[in-house]
Amino acid sequence: MGTSSAEREAMARALALAATPGVPFGPNPRVGCVLLDDDGRVVAEGLHRGAGTAHAEVDALSQVDDALLRQGLTAVVTLEPCDHTGRTGPCSEALLTAGVRRVVHALPDPTEAAGGGARRLREAGVEVECGLMAEEATRLNRGWLHGLRHGRPFVTWKLATSLDGRSAAADGTSRWVSNAASRRDTHRLRGLADVMMAGTGTVLTDGPRLNVRDEHDRPLPRQAQPLRVVVGERPLPGDAAVLDDSAATWVTGTRDLSAVLTTLFEQGRREVFLEGGPTLAGAFLAAGLVDEVVAYVAPLLIGDGIPAAQGLPFTSITDALRLDVLDVTTIGAAPETDVRLTMRPHEKEA
Amino acid sequence: MGTSSAEREAMARALALAATPGVPFGPNPRVGCVLLDDDGRVVAEGLHRGAGTAHAEVDALSQVDDALLRQGLTAVVTLEPCDHTGRTGPCSEALLTAGVRRVVHALPDPTEAAGGGARRLREAGVEVECGLMAEEATRLNRGWLHGLRHGRPFVTWKLATSLDGRSAAADGTSRWVSNAASRRDTHRLRGLADVMMAGTGTVLTDGPRLNVRDEHDRPLPRQAQPLRVVVGERPLPGDAAVLDDSAATWVTGTRDLSAVLTTLFEQGRREVFLEGGPTLAGAFLAAGLVDEVVAYVAPLLIGDGIPAAQGLPFTSITDALRLDVLDVTTIGAAPETDVRLTMRPHEKEA
Repeated sequence: MGTSSAEREAMARALALAATPGVPFGPNPRVGCVLLDDDGRVVAEGLHRGAGTAHAEVDALSQVDDALLRQGLTAVVTLEPCDHTGRTGPCSEALLTAGVRRVVHALPDPTEAAGGGARRLREAGVEVECGLMAEEATRLNRGWLHGLRHGRPFVTWKLATSLDGRSAAADGTSRWVSNAASRRDTHRLRGLADVMMAGTGTVLTDGPRLNVRDEHDRPLPRQAQPLRVVVGERPLPGDAAVLDDSAATWVTGTRDLSAVLTTLFEQGRREVFLEGGPTLAGAFLAAGLVDEVVAYVAPLLIGDGIPAAQGLPFTSITDALRLDVLDVTTIGAAPETDVRLTMRPHEKEA
Repeated sequence: MGTSSAEREAMARALALAATPGVPFGPNPRVGCVLLDDDGRVVAEGLHRGAGTAHAEVDALSQVDDALLRQGLTAVVTLEPCDHTGRTGPCSEALLTAGVRRVVHALPDPTEAAGGGARRLREAGVEVECGLMAEEATRLNRGWLHGLRHGRPFVTWKLATSLDGRSAAADGTSRWVSNAASRRDTHRLRGLADVMMAGTGTVLTDGPRLNVRDEHDRPLPRQAQPLRVVVGERPLPGDAAVLDDSAATWVTGTRDLSAVLTTLFEQGRREVFLEGGPTLAGAFLAAGLVDEVVAYVAPLLIGDGIPAAQGLPFTSITDALRLDVLDVTTIGAAPETDVRLTMRPHEKEA
């Protein structure tokens, strides 16, 4: 069997569709779908836009006329088609009704409620292939998968640091530690989360907007913005930038990280992007609540200054929190190159 | 004209010969030479082993019999052949006497005393090409070139740091911040210097040997070891590891960095490899005496601990010492990958 190069290209496109910023805001997985004809040409694309809306397969099928359907299409989809009637009908059935002859999906659906679509399709005579670009698809839906297992959102801590471990100078100035390309890259990653989180200290000191801006530094539309969440007990002034109307904001009024994460999970949030400050980051790290670390290391020496994380309870090198490196990428043109390291705490599962 | 692939391979080999650890201990440039026959085959290799010994060209020619010489060889050499009678005769003359028909060299000799070899060879009818792998050759002899311009050795500061800018934990433990591959790489770089430098604080606290060890962790022969130099006023105990007989050691008894560098230069030393500790590194940086920074950044978070450099006189982000990135390389296998950044202070010339 195996998969064709057209199917591999279609899967990459389906993954990109699924990763559209701001999609979904809700507890559902991110799913993209591309329909191919017999010659491997793309005939339609679809994506899932959040709980209660059409699934990606149905979204794609809705764009195809009957004549094309009669050829018998191939559906390339990032997740096993569901076999479950929730607020929408089962995708397995929709694919069978549409006469789809072949389904290529990246990941099996691990849920009891919705799993089983592949088996049903196979039993109905459809060719089914699973596992194409499974690693990328797992990464795309790490928030959803993590939520299924742990009942809380996936937390990514992003830090921008000098070579000597400072995120700001002694006088608090921090513009800029990272180069412009790293700052744009940060906005790209923010756009993949559904929560932007910071502590009251950072919000009061630096006045960040905590929204997602595009490559021209324009904010994404409000409905595509992650929820902004401010953690800490100190009140914010009414004119704080984080309270502007570019995105929704939840000022938690608490330092209880578990309570905040639980509430966010119950609201359907699955991916938290944590950006500061050092006290909040230190508390998350010390509590073992960081699932991924993205560090932009910039080639400068700041000297005495403000570290990216404070309050880590380590005294000896053997206590240090070791991270597994998933990726190292240089960002920006030489000689002002930053290095982005993507890491996972050593003790965390893949 | 141009150069052949055999000549490019020969130049790479000549550069490697010139970079043999421990060669030279003295104020002369590092030079390697490869002789090729008409078919591009290597017929001899030579290198310069320090002041008073044969130059690389003469070393190579001495290994070739007259029959081969009569064919008319090509000399590939990392530096323009000298035209100067010092403790040895001019290489230009030796090449002419040997009937060499073509000379390919990487760098012109910038000194008034020894330059002019290329012109003399051309005037005698020899084909001369300059500039092959000039960048690599410049890097190889940066200590010598720097000395010609500035009258002091080139200083490389090496630091091993955690992601949060710590070279040791709060209790002083530092074994290990970097991975094993980074530690081996550090020994490779040590072997290219002719001075290994550390402060009394590091020597008293950590008891380092400051010698160069090979990939099997065996010390290089004593004559191939850089001079170990300890900077600071505190006395050392007689049984300090840095005083063992694996290499020569100079205990300066002073904190005057300029005086130390001047003395080393007068002794013919051209490349200092500075490894710690934080006070000495901070003093070098603050004085603008660091010419290159090699940082091994390791994926761990140490929390409160000892920074790689202390006493930097910066308070605002605009004061920070910005470095130009020359190279970024990952060292060691995933997931324990370190990142090595090679940098130059922004204000320094190339």
